[in-house]
Amino acid sequence: TSKDDLKGLLETLLHWDMVTVTTSQGLLALLTAAARMRGDHPELAQRIEDYFDYCKRNDLRCVQAITDAKGDRRVAPGGQADPDVYTRIVERRPDGIVIRGAKLHISSAAISHELVVMPTKNMKPGEEDYAVACAIPVNAPGVRIVNTSYAPREREEDFPVSSKHNMPEGFIIFDDVFVPNERVFLAGETGHSATFAHALGLWERLGGTAHMSEFADQLVGLAQLIAEANGTERISHIREKVAEMIIYATMTRSGLEAAIANAEPSPEGWYFPSELFTNAAKHYAASEYSHMVRHLQDIGGGSIVTAPSVADLENDEVGPFIAKYMATKEGISGEYRTKLFHAIRDFTADAYGGWQLVTMLQSGGG
Amino acid sequence: TSKDDLKGLLETLLHWDMVTVTTSQGLLALLTAAARMRGDHPELAQRIEDYFDYCKRNDLRCVQAITDAKGDRRVAPGGQADPDVYTRIVERRPDGIVIRGAKLHISSAAISHELVVMPTKNMKPGEEDYAVACAIPVNAPGVRIVNTSYAPREREEDFPVSSKHNMPEGFIIFDDVFVPNERVFLAGETGHSATFAHALGLWERLGGTAHMSEFADQLVGLAQLIAEANGTERISHIREKVAEMIIYATMTRSGLEAAIANAEPSPEGWYFPSELFTNAAKHYAASEYSHMVRHLQDIGGGSIVTAPSVADLENDEVGPFIAKYMATKEGISGEYRTKLFHAIRDFTADAYGGWQLVTMLQSGGG
Amino acid sequence: TSKDDLKGLLETLLHWDMVTVTTSQGLLALLTAAARMRGDHPELAQRIEDYFDYCKRNDLRCVQAITDAKGDRRVAPGGQADPDVYTRIVERRPDGIVIRGAKLHISSAAISHELVVMPTKNMKPGEEDYAVACAIPVNAPGVRIVNTSYAPREREEDFPVSSKHNMPEGFIIFDDVFVPNERVFLAGETGHSATFAHALGLWERLGGTAHMSEFADQLVGLAQLIAEANGTERISHIREKVAEMIIYATMTRSGLEAAIANAEPSPEGWYFPSELFTNAAKHYAASEYSHMVRHLQDIGGGSIVTAPSVADLENDEVGPFIAKYMATKEGISGEYRTKLFHAIRDFTADAYGGWQLVTMLQSGGG
Amino acid sequence: TSKDDLKGLLETLLHWDMVTVTTSQGLLALLTAAARMRGDHPELAQRIEDYFDYCKRNDLRCVQAITDAKGDRRVAPGGQADPDVYTRIVERRPDGIVIRGAKLHISSAAISHELVVMPTKNMKPGEEDYAVACAIPVNAPGVRIVNTSYAPREREEDFPVSSKHNMPEGFIIFDDVFVPNERVFLAGETGHSATFAHALGLWERLGGTAHMSEFADQLVGLAQLIAEANGTERISHIREKVAEMIIYATMTRSGLEAAIANAEPSPEGWYFPSELFTNAAKHYAASEYSHMVRHLQDIGGGSIVTAPSVADLENDEVGPFIAKYMATKEGISGEYRTKLFHAIRDFTADAYGGWQLVTMLQSGGG
Ligand SMILES: Cc1cc2nc3c(=O)[nH]c(=O)nc-3n(C[C@H](O)[C@H](O)[C@H](O)COP(=O)(O)OP(=O)(O)OC[C@H]3O[C@@H](n4cnc5c(N)ncnc54)[C@H](O)[C@@H]3O)c2cc1C
Ligand SMILES: Cc1cc2nc3c(=O)[nH]c(=O)nc-3n(C[C@H](O)[C@H](O)[C@H](O)COP(=O)(O)OP(=O)(O)OC[C@H]3O[C@@H](n4cnc5c(N)ncnc54)[C@H](O)[C@@H]3O)c2cc1C
Ligand SMILES: Cc1cc2nc3c(=O)[nH]c(=O)nc-3n(C[C@H](O)[C@H](O)[C@H](O)COP(=O)(O)OP(=O)(O)OC[C@H]3O[C@@H](n4cnc5c(N)ncnc54)[C@H](O)[C@@H]3O)c2cc1C
Ligand SMILES: Cc1cc2nc3c(=O)[nH]c(=O)nc-3n(C[C@H](O)[C@H](O)[C@H](O)COP(=O)(O)OP(=O)(O)OC[C@H]3O[C@@H](n4cnc5c(N)ncnc54)[C@H](O)[C@@H]3O)c2cc1C
Repeated sequence: TSKDDLKGLLETLLHWDMVTVTTSQGLLALLTAAARMRGDHPELAQRIEDYFDYCKRNDLRCVQAITDAKGDRRVAPGGQADPDVYTRIVERRPDGIVIRGAKLHISSAAISHELVVMPTKNMKPGEEDYAVACAIPVNAPGVRIVNTSYAPREREEDFPVSSKHNMPEGFIIFDDVFVPNERVFLAGETGHSATFAHALGLWERLGGTAHMSEFADQLVGLAQLIAEANGTERISHIREKVAEMIIYATMTRSGLEAAIANAEPSPEGWYFPSELFTNAAKHYAASEYSHMVRHLQDIGGGSIVTAPSVADLENDEVGPFIAKYMATKEGISGEYRTKLFHAIRDFTADAYGGWQLVTMLQSGGG
Repeated sequence: TSKDDLKGLLETLLHWDMVTVTTSQGLLALLTAAARMRGDHPELAQRIEDYFDYCKRNDLRCVQAITDAKGDRRVAPGGQADPDVYTRIVERRPDGIVIRGAKLHISSAAISHELVVMPTKNMKPGEEDYAVACAIPVNAPGVRIVNTSYAPREREEDFPVSSKHNMPEGFIIFDDVFVPNERVFLAGETGHSATFAHALGLWERLGGTAHMSEFADQLVGLAQLIAEANGTERISHIREKVAEMIIYATMTRSGLEAAIANAEPSPEGWYFPSELFTNAAKHYAASEYSHMVRHLQDIGGGSIVTAPSVADLENDEVGPFIAKYMATKEGISGEYRTKLFHAIRDFTADAYGGWQLVTMLQSGGG
Repeated sequence: TSKDDLKGLLETLLHWDMVTVTTSQGLLALLTAAARMRGDHPELAQRIEDYFDYCKRNDLRCVQAITDAKGDRRVAPGGQADPDVYTRIVERRPDGIVIRGAKLHISSAAISHELVVMPTKNMKPGEEDYAVACAIPVNAPGVRIVNTSYAPREREEDFPVSSKHNMPEGFIIFDDVFVPNERVFLAGETGHSATFAHALGLWERLGGTAHMSEFADQLVGLAQLIAEANGTERISHIREKVAEMIIYATMTRSGLEAAIANAEPSPEGWYFPSELFTNAAKHYAASEYSHMVRHLQDIGGGSIVTAPSVADLENDEVGPFIAKYMATKEGISGEYRTKLFHAIRDFTADAYGGWQLVTMLQSGGG
Repeated sequence: TSKDDLKGLLETLLHWDMVTVTTSQGLLALLTAAARMRGDHPELAQRIEDYFDYCKRNDLRCVQAITDAKGDRRVAPGGQADPDVYTRIVERRPDGIVIRGAKLHISSAAISHELVVMPTKNMKPGEEDYAVACAIPVNAPGVRIVNTSYAPREREEDFPVSSKHNMPEGFIIFDDVFVPNERVFLAGETGHSATFAHALGLWERLGGTAHMSEFADQLVGLAQLIAEANGTERISHIREKVAEMIIYATMTRSGLEAAIANAEPSPEGWYFPSELFTNAAKHYAASEYSHMVRHLQDIGGGSIVTAPSVADLENDEVGPFIAKYMATKEGISGEYRTKLFHAIRDFTADAYGGWQLVTMLQSGGG
């Protein structure tokens, strides 16, 4: 790829659905890892490339199963009270390995075909059983996925955002799962245990920042719309808050543009976004996000959390009154303004909004 | 009251349920207003005191119905597209008045006996019909209350906080409601239109700050508990975040203590908390709250939003695995840690958490 | 110019001395203004271009004299207690105009050849006498310049930064100065009164941001050097502070890169940096600067302000002891570390540092 | 003392000159240390009390010489390249000890009578030679003090603040100084090495916070005065900045009041301010200070750093013009406003201002 391709790729990332993004990031990372491992372990590299072809041929959706349960955060895998809190090889057979453990918070796991398992961190000599990467079909014997989701279970019309965009997370259990050799990409080669997560990390942070950039634009848009609907868009403190939000959105976007503009070729000749700019943008965007949400909530007013439901609005007895009193001026009907408040609540002050806040801080490696 | 009484009152406020707090704050404000109006309007002052006695005698719960729909925020009541967006007198009869309008976001309205209506802002000469204060039973003809709530409608065990503490808000409609004279406390005396809200404001801000101080302590507690459960309580950046949270909680508490320690007697001889310290503490606490929530979410990790539900935990097939992999070390069972994550999610990253964030910025007059 | 030229220009800006920068920015702005005025006032546009050629031919250094005294900030020029607080035309003669007023904080005025006078803000119809732009030689009769400077007047060796980089500011007085017609570029054409400052503003903000980006890199450099000299570079809270400083420097740089990458051609076919990205970067960089200074001062320690002077260090009696006790480890001599502290003090905690803080907030239009 | 005495003491601290404060804090700390050591080392306790009486009787000014040179910050005293970077006992004689080392940044050292030496940190078994506390007259043989100061050396009238309030810091060298036994308070008793600094720390932090509270009030005052002088005091963003500054000053004051209100008696029956509230207030005040300085500099304008000097103002030729153009409206003369700008520069944007910024972060133990 060249830099221009990269810029195109970024736009693409923003329009694909999440599983597709996950799949392509994951496979890209596998290919990068293959390239880096070819020197030391040509046959592992070959297996990865064969697996890549297989997924492409069959149009499979893959998820990246990295994050382990991890137990006590201060303690190395081998020293944990329960040795399984980092996923590990419990048996090595001539035809494959058997793994035990769990991978947590795995996005889209329950709606994918393939789980691409990689080590959560660098493993040291002595931790060979924990240096495991492989691919497992979701329906392999011994795999269980407990799904969690913030998707609204009721009144979808009050959740205009999260009823459309939501991400199921999977708590994946490997209850002694057999993985045949051709699907094993790492089984004790500790020197390469960080290669996978590292290859993935940069893409994840770039993708994450691209999404934060989109959210930032949406926060600005909602702020401006609700200020106009309230009639406050020209009031000095409201304008300053919107201006701060625009600066935030613009700086986040700058970081992405600079990451792309300063892309560097890897030894394999592929272009990677600049690590310095990607990381700076990611940290900046994540650390200021909650402050921008506060601005939007400040601008909007109490109806963000107290607006009557859409069902109330459609109710014959009280609906017309709600429409009357939620209206503010010509061109701003009560129905429109009520729905705007629900969008703001759903986006920033309810299950999906909370999920965003946490995800911004934690996903992509915390 | 003396200063010591005030300090006692503060503790009391924190332990009463919200309707009781609302009632006592509202009635206190009415009494203060009565004292201030006695010179100019002795018979209005008398009506207020009679009403106070009536509520006390019958142990009635009252809510403070102040905030109007307000329409276009730049426009005065008289200039609005719809003249009813500020509650107003539409008819004056010998035996009383008829009012029309709406009061929004009224806490506990649907579970109270009495609506104490007051003007949302100072009204000027020419705005006499908007200078209206009165008391209306919730079941008076023409009153309609649309209730909203963030209380969880399902899986109460996943919402350990909000299933216990939640506050119904009422969207109150006055569809030409008759109010007999003895319940009318202001009907055109614009000079006193701000007296009510002003008398209430200080108490509301003090009460609001007291609650933020409690929330701050809870944030600190949750942060420390989850750090210990994760095994990270001695890691440098985690300790610094907890330390910042303790400073926040301590400074908020300082503001309250200084407000009480510097209380001043009013002309009526009642002690009021210092306005300077109360306002500073309120603004400080509200503006830093979302930052503290971010610290907690940073400390906790992704399971705040991805932890399997309590039902999953109790499920025979996957429950034991969840318990196994959510455990971290001796003394920290998977069940305990999962429930801790749910408490954090519910408190900061779901409907109740979002309601908190907005309420902190908007309630008590924004 | 094209985008690549722009990027080159930026690098150039950073290496030229300030008067040259000022000159080129000012003349660029004049040319832009000429292009915009040609339609309405072809002969004014011609005068500007002739003046431009004259300056180029004679290699003159020009300063931009825009900021007026301004009197009461709420009051328009015509309503001020003293009508001269905005520079104005006091006499119109066949061969020129006579102006009176003052231009404040004019960088490099005392060391330049030419003062390019422009209106400080948009002037409205009725304010024709205040809509004045012209060029005046520094030695024209009636011109007086009171120079101010933070340059150290003593012990240059203790001021390693400001003894080399310092900027004299001029308080320019126009005590009824005659300006011949060929040097008058605006004399009442209120419709174009904002054209000059507007054309200049974007370049100034870009240049200002470029300098802040340099300062940011220097702050990072000083922070890393002093941490290494103190032996704290691997301590967790120090690393986090340095990391935040790097993010700041990187984001500032991103904003510049995005401003250039998104440059747009003007109607005249010249490329201008993106206004959106330039403004965002300027505000971001200026508003976080003092926070980064705080990090550096936190990392460095008390010797930033208490280190003995270089003269003390060279003193026979106490010098060897200072060298002994200011040393920290192999490779870090006391002399080196003492001088590093002086550089940090001079750069951030003395006259020059204070000048920086204020200038960052105020220059380029505040 | 009781709580009320404490409150009185606080007011006193703010009005005494710094050496007196230092003396009283230091002696208070010595007495506290004596009380804590009496059980284990009655004769050391007795020596301290005798010394206290001696100072009182002779009305001596004492400074607290704690902070060592410290060398490489990661390395313990015994492991340093130069063993003298922590002050240590180099010889033990029957009649006393000989110490070598340096104490840095010692406030008022050069203008005091007595240096009260205490260990900079807790010393462990094996570090007996570093566990040294004693009292040394400034003129003892082998003592050298290199003085540093930010006091203006010129144009005092342009430095209205720092020419009056300034604090000389001493770099104290102990070149094998003999200390007779009756002045030795600790000489190897590592178990009590932290007792002194700990006893002092709380008082220092309280005193430091009291001073920050004063500075905060002064920042607010300067901000309000300059806004009024500029005519901007009613402009929305200026009012918001002043309001934030008032909140800061009020919260800092709250912290002090709460520290006093929650004072606790020590085992010896003396009242100590609450450690929790003192520390929180100190950290809050120090960490927000530079932000408040930024507000003041934002409100004031460019003349903070570019205002002509008082000498220029008094100059016959240009003085009247400066007075004319620095004036803004009735009641605000150019002379007054120019001097206000110098006060702001001196207080926040020159040597003294920089000294403040650093001192706020570092003094009292960083
Ligand atoms: C919505 C969402 C989607 C996700 N999707 C995926 C996915 O598709 N695939 C995948 O593999 N993972 C995924 N993750 C997991 C994500 O990468 C982790 O949440 C993240 O790495 C943090 O790990 P944790 O949740 O276990 O928190 P913890 O590791 O417990 O971290 C919590 C806090 O403690 C700190 N901390 C923990 N240990 C240490 C230490 N040793 N030293 C210093 N500080 C420490 C962290 O910095 C953090 O501040 C997802 C997470 C979320 C929230
Ligand atoms: C949970 C909750 C409970 C509440 N309980 C009660 C209650 O019991 N009784 C009661 O009477 N009220 C109650 N309120 C209402 C609360 O007082 C209002 O939400 C608050 O006054 C803000 O009014 P608003 O929601 O209409 O927002 P708006 O007035 O629209 O304000 C939104 C934003 O615009 C700004 N703004 C609006 N108009 C102007 C203007 N003219 N100039 C400058 N800035 C402006 C505000 O500063 C704010 O930043 C409650 C609110 C909440 C969220
Ligand atoms: C080091 C330095 C170099 C400079 N170099 C030059 C130069 O070469 N050429 C040149 O022409 N100028 C120069 N300037 C001047 C600079 O552009 C001005 O300082 C700046 O425009 C602010 O004007 P002021 O200093 O008069 O402050 P003020 O205008 O008094 O502003 C102070 C504060 O009040 C606010 N304020 C003032 N009026 C209003 C209003 N009406 N509404 C809302 N807010 C208001 C401002 O936003 C600001 O926060 C320089 C300044 C500095 C500090
Ligand atoms: C104006 C002024 C007056 C003073 N007056 C006195 C006085 O009267 N008497 C007196 O005894 N002292 C006095 N001090 C000294 C003051 O207490 C010290 O400056 C302070 O303790 C910091 O020590 P340092 O300057 O050596 O900086 P350092 O110790 O080098 O600290 C610099 C930074 O590094 C960090 N750091 C250093 N070591 C570590 C570590 N091991 N682990 C983690 N972080 C670390 C610090 O937290 C800080 O952020 C004064 C200081 C000033 C500025």
